Amino acid sequence: MNTQTTDILVIGGGPAAMVLATTALENYPDKKITIVKIEKIGQVPCGIPYVFGTTLGSSDKNAMACGGVIVEMIDIKVDKIVKVDFKTKTAFGLENTIVYDKLVFATGSIPFVHESLSHTLDHENVFTISKYKDDIDKVKNYIEDKKRIIIIGTGFIGVEMAIELKSIGKDVTIIGGKNILVNSFDTDLAIQGEDIMRDLGINLSLGQHASNVIENDNLATAIELCDGTIIEGDAIILCTGYKPNTVLAEESGLKDTMYGGIWVDEYMKTTQKDVFAIGDCSGRRDSITRNPSKVMLASTSAAEARVAANSLYGLKYLKGFSGTIAIFSTMIGNRAFASAGVTEAQAKKENIDYVVGSFESMNRHPGTMPDASKQFIKLIALRSSGQIIGGQIVGDKEAGEIINIIGLTIESQLTAHHLISLQVATQPVLTPAPTTYPLIKAAQNILLNKSACHTK
Amino acid sequence: MNTQTTDILVIGGGPAAMVLATTALENYPDKKITIVKIEKIGQVPCGIPYVFGTTLGSSDKNAMACGGVIVEMIDIKVDKIVKVDFKTKTAFGLENTIVYDKLVFATGSIPFVHESLSHTLDHENVFTISKYKDDIDKVKNYIEDKKRIIIIGTGFIGVEMAIELKSIGKDVTIIGGKNILVNSFDTDLAIQGEDIMRDLGINLSLGQHASNVIENDNLATAIELCDGTIIEGDAIILCTGYKPNTVLAEESGLKDTMYGGIWVDEYMKTTQKDVFAIGDCSGRRDSITRNPSKVMLASTSAAEARVAANSLYGLKYLKGFSGTIAIFSTMIGNRAFASAGVTEAQAKKENIDYVVGSFESMNRHPGTMPDASKQFIKLIALRSSGQIIGGQIVGDKEAGEIINIIGLTIESQLTAHHLISLQVATQPVLTPAPTTYPLIKAAQNILLNKSACHTK
Repeated sequence: MNTQTTDILVIGGGPAAMVLATTALENYPDKKITIVKIEKIGQVPCGIPYVFGTTLGSSDKNAMACGGVIVEMIDIKVDKIVKVDFKTKTAFGLENTIVYDKLVFATGSIPFVHESLSHTLDHENVFTISKYKDDIDKVKNYIEDKKRIIIIGTGFIGVEMAIELKSIGKDVTIIGGKNILVNSFDTDLAIQGEDIMRDLGINLSLGQHASNVIENDNLATAIELCDGTIIEGDAIILCTGYKPNTVLAEESGLKDTMYGGIWVDEYMKTTQKDVFAIGDCSGRRDSITRNPSKVMLASTSAAEARVAANSLYGLKYLKGFSGTIAIFSTMIGNRAFASAGVTEAQAKKENIDYVVGSFESMNRHPGTMPDASKQFIKLIALRSSGQIIGGQIVGDKEAGEIINIIGLTIESQLTAHHLISLQVATQPVLTPAPTTYPLIKAAQNILLNKSACHTK
Repeated sequence: MNTQTTDILVIGGGPAAMVLATTALENYPDKKITIVKIEKIGQVPCGIPYVFGTTLGSSDKNAMACGGVIVEMIDIKVDKIVKVDFKTKTAFGLENTIVYDKLVFATGSIPFVHESLSHTLDHENVFTISKYKDDIDKVKNYIEDKKRIIIIGTGFIGVEMAIELKSIGKDVTIIGGKNILVNSFDTDLAIQGEDIMRDLGINLSLGQHASNVIENDNLATAIELCDGTIIEGDAIILCTGYKPNTVLAEESGLKDTMYGGIWVDEYMKTTQKDVFAIGDCSGRRDSITRNPSKVMLASTSAAEARVAANSLYGLKYLKGFSGTIAIFSTMIGNRAFASAGVTEAQAKKENIDYVVGSFESMNRHPGTMPDASKQFIKLIALRSSGQIIGGQIVGDKEAGEIINIIGLTIESQLTAHHLISLQVATQPVLTPAPTTYPLIKAAQNILLNKSACHTK
């Protein structure tokens, strides 16, 4: 057994681990940084659905870039840590024993399957989507000559998987809740995405839960829905979410969990001295409602990693992580869907006194520009102060960055008043008109609706 | 003469006038709003260069949309106001006399031509680019069968005109300062745009001023540069900027000007009671340096119009207009160039103690995604506080919206500390990776550079 000493030990190989290591390297150039990861070359987590269709087409193309600086300046070990002794500050791997000064858990998440479906995984044609190349290749190889694919779950991974599998000619049926992407979009936007998926030829079976799996030998041959409908398939992919991977932390005696993840404070410190947790394995809450959050996003992980890296040796900047704003985007057909903060549905559920403003315009100006298409923006604000607490967009690809304007607005606790006379760069080939820039008009509508109607 | 009474009279037909009218309509539904404009259907100002090439191809396609609500709810008169009597609150047009309660000047800007070149306009083949359809059509018709076009001026209009004219097969030479777009981009970015323009086949003649115009009968046949170079052309287009159109204001006795425009306070009030000025005709200053600003942007005008419309009858919101942040974008070839706030060159000139952070990454992730291309972001911050005072981007089309994240950062006086752990939506098809999102990495680099080096 190879025993070594390091300053900063990171367990994990996903985006959280990589961002922590690079940021720590910049902040503390004299410290030795060690990463222990299971796979030599990891996968880009959000790229995984695109491995299955025409967009990327192979897991080789989805390798996580390990920049030169990481390889040269950071000690990267491919190993599996099986236990940590916090007292002696020692991590035990299968091949390495590492004594650390600061430890960072970045052990990520693993597929979550509801109890009622977990037995189906015994069948050789039922899969989840893990983040490891071998697992991904296994699914991809299995379905290569299969025609009918059933996807259970209408979150981002389910929707993206459905679209990619359809792109290579599969018969795809997706089964899920009342609407797709229900945690990020209100019904008015979700149904636009559903229509596009139907136009692509994907079968949507919404508002129905899988009640039974019909089996034949070692195969699951069909899903029976609550209403008795039978959907036959050659392979079934469960895209029913992920859960924090806290196995190592718990087996090492770090029992303090929060919302299923490792308990952390605003600087990502756990209850153990000198031990941090970042990324999907940490316990997350919603920035606005302060409720537990199941959001698992590489971008959230990256933000947490940057906060942790700035706090490893005392506070460098007084900017903690104050909960996820659940900021997402994806592409359905040729439309981008993006969301941040709370939806109207969530605001209602939480009894938030909110007001909505929305606006639709063309994303180029004049609207006769060659590639012009519609851009719809909806903003949600607290009625009393006008503070922006959520936003949703359907538009062309630039929606993926406009949502980041809304994200900055939410994170900085800005109000509709700040947005109404925002100076924005507008250009015929690139943006909507300055006269009808949807973000500003939606903010203006919030103020109008706010004063127009004082009852909920 | 037709005498009428109105509540709010707007003189002008550009974006400022339109935004003022629609916003006032929303805010004060009981007030009568009258617009007096010279053309029945105006042109989208920033769309004008695109009329000349393949992008739009005709001024008909560049008509400013006059939404149904404007036409129905607002009294629009096509007339030219020639004098205003502020004492009796009366505006005199060629066909209408209008008594107002509140008056808004939105008379825009007219082409600026330096004294040394103004005599060249006597030639029938020398033009400026005005904002009126007839003028634009006149230029377009004249050059239709001409081959060699000389453009003088390397601001946005000059650059966009050069690209559009090249797109329809003209031989284009553009003459200007040391670099293109010098007010918005530092040399490191500007030269990238210049290289693209050269690749498109445009002749760049930079760092040389036109010293002489060679004439033959009624035509200007060539431009002689300071170094003696002769550039022959069949038509010459002067894209040397615009100046506030204050003729009516001055002739009506409103002599208080600021930086060439009508003097206004933060709520766009002039020195005359109940009289406002917005858009290019108002006196502008830079939000950061507080110096006079020659920036003439429809988006700035729209912001001013929204502020004025919220202040016509007393303050509605305490958000005044605190100067332009000069937020621009444009497309050169297949790359978007975007800028906000001060450049490094301006910061140096103003003796600002600044620090720069920059980062380049791919705009999709992994970098193997089908339409991935490079995205470069440079941020400029005050060294002492880290407050962001400028940003520049070269990237794909989404740069047009990323600059608006930077704009919000500048306007909200946020610092690099706010950006380093910003939660951003990242998605393979839409954005850079969360691990290397250039805006965040550039902010992180500002903090590193800030602490690494305390001397300028």
